[in-house]
Amino acid sequence: MTIILYDIPSKLPIKAWSPNTWKTRFCLNYKGLPYRTEWVEYPDIAEHAKKHGLKPTGEKNPWDGGPYYSLPAIHDEATGVYISDSWLIAEYLEKQYPDTPSVFPNNTKGLQEALGNTYDSLLDPLWNFILPLTAGRLNPRSEEYFIRTRSLAFGKPLAEVLPTGEQATTDWAQIKEIMNKVDGWFAKTDDKGPFILGDVISWADFEIAGNKIWMKVIWGEDSEQWKDVASWNGGRWENLLKAVEKYSSVD
Amino acid sequence: MTIILYDIPSKLPIKAWSPNTWKTRFCLNYKGLPYRTEWVEYPDIAEHAKKHGLKPTGEKNPWDGGPYYSLPAIHDEATGVYISDSWLIAEYLEKQYPDTPSVFPNNTKGLQEALGNTYDSLLDPLWNFILPLTAGRLNPRSEEYFIRTRSLAFGKPLAEVLPTGEQATTDWAQIKEIMNKVDGWFAKTDDKGPFILGDVISWADFEIAGNKIWMKVIWGEDSEQWKDVASWNGGRWENLLKAVEKYSSVD
Repeated sequence: MTIILYDIPSKLPIKAWSPNTWKTRFCLNYKGLPYRTEWVEYPDIAEHAKKHGLKPTGEKNPWDGGPYYSLPAIHDEATGVYISDSWLIAEYLEKQYPDTPSVFPNNTKGLQEALGNTYDSLLDPLWNFILPLTAGRLNPRSEEYFIRTRSLAFGKPLAEVLPTGEQATTDWAQIKEIMNKVDGWFAKTDDKGPFILGDVISWADFEIAGNKIWMKVIWGEDSEQWKDVASWNGGRWENLLKAVEKYSSVD
Repeated sequence: MTIILYDIPSKLPIKAWSPNTWKTRFCLNYKGLPYRTEWVEYPDIAEHAKKHGLKPTGEKNPWDGGPYYSLPAIHDEATGVYISDSWLIAEYLEKQYPDTPSVFPNNTKGLQEALGNTYDSLLDPLWNFILPLTAGRLNPRSEEYFIRTRSLAFGKPLAEVLPTGEQATTDWAQIKEIMNKVDGWFAKTDDKGPFILGDVISWADFEIAGNKIWMKVIWGEDSEQWKDVASWNGGRWENLLKAVEKYSSVD
């Protein structure tokens, strides 16, 4: 009896790259729950979801208006449950395995959700920098699917979404400014430790760390972009990745 | 030996109305610290601050570019300290009176700040509805000062800021949508109680309750506006005010 984590593979040695599936991987590792990964290529996600009764995670995808199916999803062999959406998976794991460390300690769910909502909505300028490069890290079938669907979503070829010249400078500065804001939140408690709750890990740390792993593996750790991000805010984001390293293993 | 809370008076029976000074009043009441209020009219705030070495709370005010002085501020007679800015005051009280109940329980400062930042920035559409009416609730000297400075800040007479017709309908709907979002945060923990941390009060509750008291006293509890807000989200905001009622006394 184990848990199966459905994740999207990349061609990179670490394989795992998606910020969303990373949130679930962190939760499973942190809770010490036995699991194994089953890799699902992009064009197979919808079929896979329908086959297992996994619910869509969005009403309409932006390329053909059909239901949006995404990963992570898990299957818990112990209960027979199939469940999608990283937040709902976390809630399920909290409830089903109450003796494992909580990712929502001290009833902080509402505050965690507030931070998560905000973090997501602030980071709009990031997608243009990272989605076009994400495509090239995927296996050929996923790459083709990703480019096709995201180009439809953007209304132009995905490669052209990447900011260049002055636009790139402005948009990058905006990302930096956003991270300064997020740094300000962490700074409020950081005499107590590297996490948003000081020395206690929680959901928001995994959310932000997942986002940062995405940058690091897609751009590459020696890229200008990642080196820049890693230098921001006194190295806070690189330090956060170090602090969650023991929960970062990929089976 | 007591604490003096500097607050801005209104003509209303409850006198206290400012969402910012309410945050501090809630903190003092919740912590059970003895205090009394000294009322400072708007045109006297800057002078009062300079006299006591209270720092500006903003670099530039939007009407003449000078330093922005605001209330709340407190003077702690026991330590001689004068301090402005509701967040800094809360931090001071936490440190100085560690045996009183904390408004940042379990190292949630960073999460509280994230919620507060977001709540503030989301509520832009509210100002147009409430600032013009706020003026009329103040004593004459403050009213004159408030209308003059805020008209300069908006670049038009304050009375004209109030949305009308279709604009009012659209902007009001936007406020409702924002509160739906905030309701979603509370809903994540609300099986545990009326507060963002379930059954434990914290800073974010006082921030949101202060904002709601402002609406209730400026518009009036029998106004269409307040009755509408009170009906939103299953009565969550009226219930929050009830839940903090025991910390809502004004001396």
